[in-house]
Amino acid sequence: MNAKAEINDNNIKFKDSVGIVEKKLLHFNNAEKKLLLDCGQILFPFILAYETYGQLNAKKDNVILIFHALSGDSHAAGYYSEEDKKPGWWDMMIGPGKAFDTNKYYVICSNVIGGCMGSTGPSSVNPQTGKPYCLTFPQITINDMVKAQKMLLDELGIKKLFSVSGGSMGGMLGLQFMINYPDMLDSAILFATTARLSAENIAFNAVGRMAITSDPNWNNGEYYDKQPPDAGLAVARMLAHITYLSREILKEKFDRKLQDKEKYSYDFNIDFQVESYLKYQGYSFVRRFDANSYLYITKAMDYFDLTDKDGKLTPAFRNLNKNMKVAVVSFTSDWLFPTAMSKMIVNALKSQNIDVTFCEVNSNRGHDAFLLEKEKLTTIVKGFLENVERK
Amino acid sequence: MNAKAEINDNNIKFKDSVGIVEKKLLHFNNAEKKLLLDCGQILFPFILAYETYGQLNAKKDNVILIFHALSGDSHAAGYYSEEDKKPGWWDMMIGPGKAFDTNKYYVICSNVIGGCMGSTGPSSVNPQTGKPYCLTFPQITINDMVKAQKMLLDELGIKKLFSVSGGSMGGMLGLQFMINYPDMLDSAILFATTARLSAENIAFNAVGRMAITSDPNWNNGEYYDKQPPDAGLAVARMLAHITYLSREILKEKFDRKLQDKEKYSYDFNIDFQVESYLKYQGYSFVRRFDANSYLYITKAMDYFDLTDKDGKLTPAFRNLNKNMKVAVVSFTSDWLFPTAMSKMIVNALKSQNIDVTFCEVNSNRGHDAFLLEKEKLTTIVKGFLENVERK
Repeated sequence: MNAKAEINDNNIKFKDSVGIVEKKLLHFNNAEKKLLLDCGQILFPFILAYETYGQLNAKKDNVILIFHALSGDSHAAGYYSEEDKKPGWWDMMIGPGKAFDTNKYYVICSNVIGGCMGSTGPSSVNPQTGKPYCLTFPQITINDMVKAQKMLLDELGIKKLFSVSGGSMGGMLGLQFMINYPDMLDSAILFATTARLSAENIAFNAVGRMAITSDPNWNNGEYYDKQPPDAGLAVARMLAHITYLSREILKEKFDRKLQDKEKYSYDFNIDFQVESYLKYQGYSFVRRFDANSYLYITKAMDYFDLTDKDGKLTPAFRNLNKNMKVAVVSFTSDWLFPTAMSKMIVNALKSQNIDVTFCEVNSNRGHDAFLLEKEKLTTIVKGFLENVERK
Repeated sequence: MNAKAEINDNNIKFKDSVGIVEKKLLHFNNAEKKLLLDCGQILFPFILAYETYGQLNAKKDNVILIFHALSGDSHAAGYYSEEDKKPGWWDMMIGPGKAFDTNKYYVICSNVIGGCMGSTGPSSVNPQTGKPYCLTFPQITINDMVKAQKMLLDELGIKKLFSVSGGSMGGMLGLQFMINYPDMLDSAILFATTARLSAENIAFNAVGRMAITSDPNWNNGEYYDKQPPDAGLAVARMLAHITYLSREILKEKFDRKLQDKEKYSYDFNIDFQVESYLKYQGYSFVRRFDANSYLYITKAMDYFDLTDKDGKLTPAFRNLNKNMKVAVVSFTSDWLFPTAMSKMIVNALKSQNIDVTFCEVNSNRGHDAFLLEKEKLTTIVKGFLENVERK
């Protein structure tokens, strides 16, 4: 009975998903395939973790490259096993019949360098020393992440992308890809992103990093054979998590509701449900993420700035593929990368005569809306991609 | 030459201030003056630190009681010595000819219980044990703070207040005072405050507390003879500080300006001026504030909620002094306690036929505007108090 129910659950679970998927690791250890980083250092050898969903067609022209956000990874869709409870982070968007329809498209997602989910990052073993890089890992940038993924495409023999897409930091990678490899792209769909972090964005990232580096277990980044800085990373995540939510959804979900009791505790135990929720978010994050990667990737985000000395974005878009189509999507209640940041991108693209579609989606889910608003985003993406196909 | 310049500076400095002031400590050690707390415990004996500016008139009817915010204290105006560089926290508002004109009014400001600037709090020595209270200090509430200050007024023989005023948490104390002692008040002026913290407000406070309690030096609150949890408290303050500023002022002051260099460091040193500014704010705060007090006071704020089970504020205002006048002031760029929170207070007061003036001040200074917008607030307060006098 139970076994049957489980099979039924799995039937439902797998019915509209890409099914069981596998993380692949590509080793770049050919001396000709070095990655020259913006900081001047060279990353070599290195590994990129990636996953693919759907089938590459004979012409190799049905590829969509998906970029993940700060805490994401290459596991964008499907399940790792029959028993797996949770699918990849953008399973709502990627699968047969979904927005990024795997019956038509060959979808690729790769973990960024600097990450901790298979691609080389500060927790990886430095082959020169046989020990984890820790802080000897070079500081990477969004541009470095994109260059590494271009090398992955080269290895896979993919010369052209039907589209690229991503939200938040993933959108930044999308913008950088458009700039670096204009002739490779037919289109791009950018969600809840920005061409540069604001002072407020940097401030929140800086406090998160301070929480990590203040944790004595951080030990100047050398903790891989010891107790990791879980407390510091949890605080950083809790703080960041508030910025991913809207005031409206916090009120709707939690308001001032108390946790398991009718009265205040009058001590420092958790009183409010919102406290309990945040603590859960913080401590489940540390089980899957590396503190040093959090430092490197937030710093890469802080550094990201496509504007010139005068704060103008237009020059960065001067050499874009003039035939490409771009969709820029923002969310009404996103206060981390609010609509004004998307509009800055849209206006700069228009000034370069790029065919750009802008949607401000009405949502109370804050920045996280790009991971949650399935129906609205599916409509937008399907319509947009059909339009690109018709071209 | 230098000495002369200094004297001149002091002349300017003292010209429009209340001059040299003294912190006074009132010891409540008469067994009849116990403070029964909302948590059910009794605080006895205890000390209240307070300061006064101006002269109490013969009728004792020119008293204005000022309530400080989370990180404030009894030192609201003037200087402690000729050499003192910085005046009290609301010196812009309190002094001869200023908004709270000490030529006319007798202004009192007291440090809240639970604090660390003279009034009894977790860092105070428990006379029963001869050791600091640490976490054996009872959890206090805004109501407890207000009751303690009423006891101070009783000791000073003051039966009537011309006005009460404060911003942020100080405004909460003002609201509570109006409710507790309606017949004592002619008026109240409340800045950037709320009748209840939102889920988002609680979330930010909870992360700040988590930063402190995660610091191993916190040691379950017992650190007074050891290294205090400076790193945790600094992170809490840095985080809170972001919520006191507006996106606009962060852009105006810092934007993406780099610190002492033209290029990114590509390491984990400080790159951006906003990072340096926040770090300075965090580490200067730990020199003057106690981490346990930060825990107790933020918890008191979280608990503050004047609404009833149905979320209605009106019932709390049912027994207010119907002859009193209230001014409620919010700031356009304050996203911590935004205008909607002030309007909730205004609407509830109106429904009880209280004479209420509402001003939304146009300011780009965020929540901190109540500490900065001297000219605008002076105009509002002067006009309002003249109106109360005419009554």
